[in-house]
Amino acid sequence: MRIAIIGSGSWGCALAACWGGAGHEVVLWCRDPGVAHAIASERRHPRRLLALRLPETVRATSDMAEALSGAETAVLAVPSAYLPATLARMSPPPGVSFVSAIKGIDVETGQRPSQTIGAKFSGADVAVLSGPTFAEEVARGEPAAAVLADAESGLALRLQRTLSTPSFRLYRSGDRVGVELAGAYKNVVAIGAGILTGLGYGHNTLAALVTRGLAEMTRLAVARGGRERTLFGLAGVGDLMLTCTGRLSRNRRVGEEVCRGRALAEILDEMPEVAEGTRTCRVIPRMAAESAVETPIAEAVRRVLYEGLDPRGAIMQLMIRELKEE
Amino acid sequence: MRIAIIGSGSWGCALAACWGGAGHEVVLWCRDPGVAHAIASERRHPRRLLALRLPETVRATSDMAEALSGAETAVLAVPSAYLPATLARMSPPPGVSFVSAIKGIDVETGQRPSQTIGAKFSGADVAVLSGPTFAEEVARGEPAAAVLADAESGLALRLQRTLSTPSFRLYRSGDRVGVELAGAYKNVVAIGAGILTGLGYGHNTLAALVTRGLAEMTRLAVARGGRERTLFGLAGVGDLMLTCTGRLSRNRRVGEEVCRGRALAEILDEMPEVAEGTRTCRVIPRMAAESAVETPIAEAVRRVLYEGLDPRGAIMQLMIRELKEE
Repeated sequence: MRIAIIGSGSWGCALAACWGGAGHEVVLWCRDPGVAHAIASERRHPRRLLALRLPETVRATSDMAEALSGAETAVLAVPSAYLPATLARMSPPPGVSFVSAIKGIDVETGQRPSQTIGAKFSGADVAVLSGPTFAEEVARGEPAAAVLADAESGLALRLQRTLSTPSFRLYRSGDRVGVELAGAYKNVVAIGAGILTGLGYGHNTLAALVTRGLAEMTRLAVARGGRERTLFGLAGVGDLMLTCTGRLSRNRRVGEEVCRGRALAEILDEMPEVAEGTRTCRVIPRMAAESAVETPIAEAVRRVLYEGLDPRGAIMQLMIRELKEE
Repeated sequence: MRIAIIGSGSWGCALAACWGGAGHEVVLWCRDPGVAHAIASERRHPRRLLALRLPETVRATSDMAEALSGAETAVLAVPSAYLPATLARMSPPPGVSFVSAIKGIDVETGQRPSQTIGAKFSGADVAVLSGPTFAEEVARGEPAAAVLADAESGLALRLQRTLSTPSFRLYRSGDRVGVELAGAYKNVVAIGAGILTGLGYGHNTLAALVTRGLAEMTRLAVARGGRERTLFGLAGVGDLMLTCTGRLSRNRRVGEEVCRGRALAEILDEMPEVAEGTRTCRVIPRMAAESAVETPIAEAVRRVLYEGLDPRGAIMQLMIRELKEE
């Protein structure tokens, strides 16, 4: 299959390696022409996943029209903040299917990526890809599993066999709402996990926070029309656990650094890639208020990052709640 | 409250420290008189939690009658294999309430600890305590949360406020089946997680295995009369995550050591305390067959530990399953 991957960050490169390695014809669109050049000449991204040599089946370009020409599937792998501007540059060929590989929510509009894509290209068939997948490990070909969800259009079923490889296994779902909200929200909980770790708390405390985070994510997802079981699968529990405990999580690192008293802007400046949770935490409490559910972890993370709330006080507030039934 | 804690392993000692520190009058029963002596004279267990100094409110004895005399609550914290023999030594005072803090299932009978206790002392009111609680961290007073479940008898409600402390928070539940099966089963999944880590797989693979483990645990628990939501709470997801990712897990270590080609007997010989999952994996597949549900991870763990199945082959078999809906 001819696949255009739009975005050459770690995740875009890892997917290019995965699908290019499986024999698909992949075109990787890079915003920066220098990156496209470097990949074309050296088969590797100059700053991301330095150990990854991209297969010959992957072609890099900074020309969007060239990237999309003849593509059967366009995979969006840009930071959520750049999605609207990226879509504005795209004139996709008729009949192309979209896959969003973005784990975030638009801060201005509150839209999930599949909604933003669907609104831009009306009638577009959009699937979403999410799950416990650190880019570095997918790039190395380590076994991973993820979820591909559509709006019951049959797209996920069509793409499932094509995009699955022996080491990257895709399960399908009809719950885009649940999959996208879980993928975005888990980054916020991971910042909370980082705060807790930064304060010196141990495994027990972390497990309690993550369990409460899962309950909070589930409440919001169900209130917005998602399915509870999605939250207990790969895109929910699986990715949440990965991001809150695995050493490679950018979002968790933000939480840890905040506890060292560093300013958010400074932390983000130093990070090579975006930590989506720092944006998502601004929109979750608004969505929660609309849907009349409580999201105390997201609210605490937002206040620590943006209102200077003391991290220790915020965590204590979360732990000291009325004793009750679970 | 006067609390008898029966069993002076790490978990018994940690609970003694927690409740003794909160001002309860705790008697800790030690099978080994030497341990009781050491605690009485030096305020610490000679071989467990060496950094823990037990408060003066904790009295140690190897005399079971003395331990139970005047006790309002008897907390069982022995390895599941020793539960029947321990119960045989007990003549509990009338009206005493029982709490099982055991995470295992009887290999011979397939009974959960609360069932074994209830069968021995008919009419006994038995609650079960489970959740993400590494003993070392509870002993240090780090914030932790757990579940206290009864058979809708009101016992958990009565004990909840008494046994909760500012750093050890108890949530109540009416689902002993779900709480006990989750607490036992997660040790088996943790052995699987250890096998996977021992084989050199990374975070993504682990997250996929743990997510599948949760689904498997949930299937069995629901088939045996447990509630699905229990599995998504502290005693389920929380403890599973802790045991599969935290560095202090004995069960995970068993899996890692097996991958080094070492014999199970040798690994267990070297461990200071029991890894309950090595026993539980023998009974889960039997329970699953009775209830007509599939438990492929538990079955794979059992075959690796007891039938010499190659760990790599077993894991590959788990990962290569038919692509389907999640």
